[in-house]
Amino acid sequence: MDRKAPSVTPSIVSEWREGQLRHFEDSLVGEEPLEIRLNHDPLTVTMRTPGHDLELAAGFLFTEGIVQRREEIAGLKMGENGQAAGNVVCVDLHNGAGLSASHSKRNFIATSSCGLCGKSSLDQIRVRGLRPPNTEFRLSPDALCELPDRLRAAQPVFERTGGLHAAAVFDERGELLALREDVGRHNAVDKVVGWALLEGHLPLSQHTLLVSGRGGFEIIQKALTAGFPVVASISAPSSLAVELAREFGLTLVGFLRGKRFVIYSGEERLIPASDTR
Amino acid sequence: MDRKAPSVTPSIVSEWREGQLRHFEDSLVGEEPLEIRLNHDPLTVTMRTPGHDLELAAGFLFTEGIVQRREEIAGLKMGENGQAAGNVVCVDLHNGAGLSASHSKRNFIATSSCGLCGKSSLDQIRVRGLRPPNTEFRLSPDALCELPDRLRAAQPVFERTGGLHAAAVFDERGELLALREDVGRHNAVDKVVGWALLEGHLPLSQHTLLVSGRGGFEIIQKALTAGFPVVASISAPSSLAVELAREFGLTLVGFLRGKRFVIYSGEERLIPASDTR
Repeated sequence: MDRKAPSVTPSIVSEWREGQLRHFEDSLVGEEPLEIRLNHDPLTVTMRTPGHDLELAAGFLFTEGIVQRREEIAGLKMGENGQAAGNVVCVDLHNGAGLSASHSKRNFIATSSCGLCGKSSLDQIRVRGLRPPNTEFRLSPDALCELPDRLRAAQPVFERTGGLHAAAVFDERGELLALREDVGRHNAVDKVVGWALLEGHLPLSQHTLLVSGRGGFEIIQKALTAGFPVVASISAPSSLAVELAREFGLTLVGFLRGKRFVIYSGEERLIPASDTR
Repeated sequence: MDRKAPSVTPSIVSEWREGQLRHFEDSLVGEEPLEIRLNHDPLTVTMRTPGHDLELAAGFLFTEGIVQRREEIAGLKMGENGQAAGNVVCVDLHNGAGLSASHSKRNFIATSSCGLCGKSSLDQIRVRGLRPPNTEFRLSPDALCELPDRLRAAQPVFERTGGLHAAAVFDERGELLALREDVGRHNAVDKVVGWALLEGHLPLSQHTLLVSGRGGFEIIQKALTAGFPVVASISAPSSLAVELAREFGLTLVGFLRGKRFVIYSGEERLIPASDTR
């Protein structure tokens, strides 16, 4: 019964090149809406690339502060009876737990593809209970520089070319533990955090989060909820991302390419103070 | 009184390169939350790059189907008395118009950075009243290929390097009419649509929308609300974007680079049928 939503869709398209037209079958990155239901009520719809949908739902609930521990989740499955199973995830929480007063449903109709949705006023953009990540964690610059190659080596070919966003978790030795991809940057992060939640790996206090795209405010916020001490990106962070990382002492790296990167916050985890004197 | 939220923020950062560390002042792309209030009630918060905020608010209301015509807007200004003026836009509609039954506030707490937010169930993701764009419009492949260079020539330097998303409107002769940039792809599109709404240029039925990033479902939906017959992107579209473009006969182009592009839908506007026989 489970209709599996495709993560890649074949499609006949036309290529125009210097006046010549040819038709060929291309692979399109899958994008489908996913509805997350909490205790049978619709909570949110997000546009995502199908795959790892249970992790996405679990990660979304965690990074938004609705769920703190795996044990709070009583049920997690694709589809509701008689519905399009491929695009609905049903989450049941124990004891009818779920949206607290600070997450009243009215203000929480939301989606994870921007990470901010559902917030209707400025004082709602901060998730509560953020804490500074592990201050003891250290990672050498050389080890950090190897991560992008390891990420690329683990990505399927189509995903290297198809414009998907990637999020990857590396342990303290630089081993890749989890890699998830999605049309939405925040979804990719929610998927790896959901993976960690469901596998019992939270908090990720000895781990580095590598994201393919820009490091925005919401990416940093999600990383803080999961306990990452280091977040690295191939691209540039935003002003508010840097501000949040500095406030909590998270190590934030951008432009991680080859043997070069820029440190925006938390330099001490990468460069021992003795080296900078 | 107007605190101007900065679109670029200077920040001292560290660069590590092959073992050498140096400090320098970098320019960070501005990211700040913007709260949009409708008739004095908080409607949504979006993370955006400050600048053109009135256009962003107007464009958001238009592409979400809340406002159909410029004349419906009685007031549009930054800030509410005594509030942080730089990050709040207040919109007043005539006769208390605004959220209809289909846009009940409960289901419309939303943000434009993903374009989907506020939708809590699958049947809410479609904006109502979408129509096929102008079927008479034609654009030559050579004219299309020139647009990315014109876009780049108009972008300030920092924005070429800072990881911002761009959306640009070109007329039928390939002249650039409006260019807006933002940390959020959907915000950039909402800003150009808001520009067109406020300047009286809607529908944009002789125009091409060029976006720097991926062409996702929500980008196509926003383009359809504004009447664009052609949407072109430097990158890949998603499966659902192609599906929506084909359903309405919108011309969708991806991988527009140099003298080459891929046509996913609406080939006839670019390649006369006589040429393909």
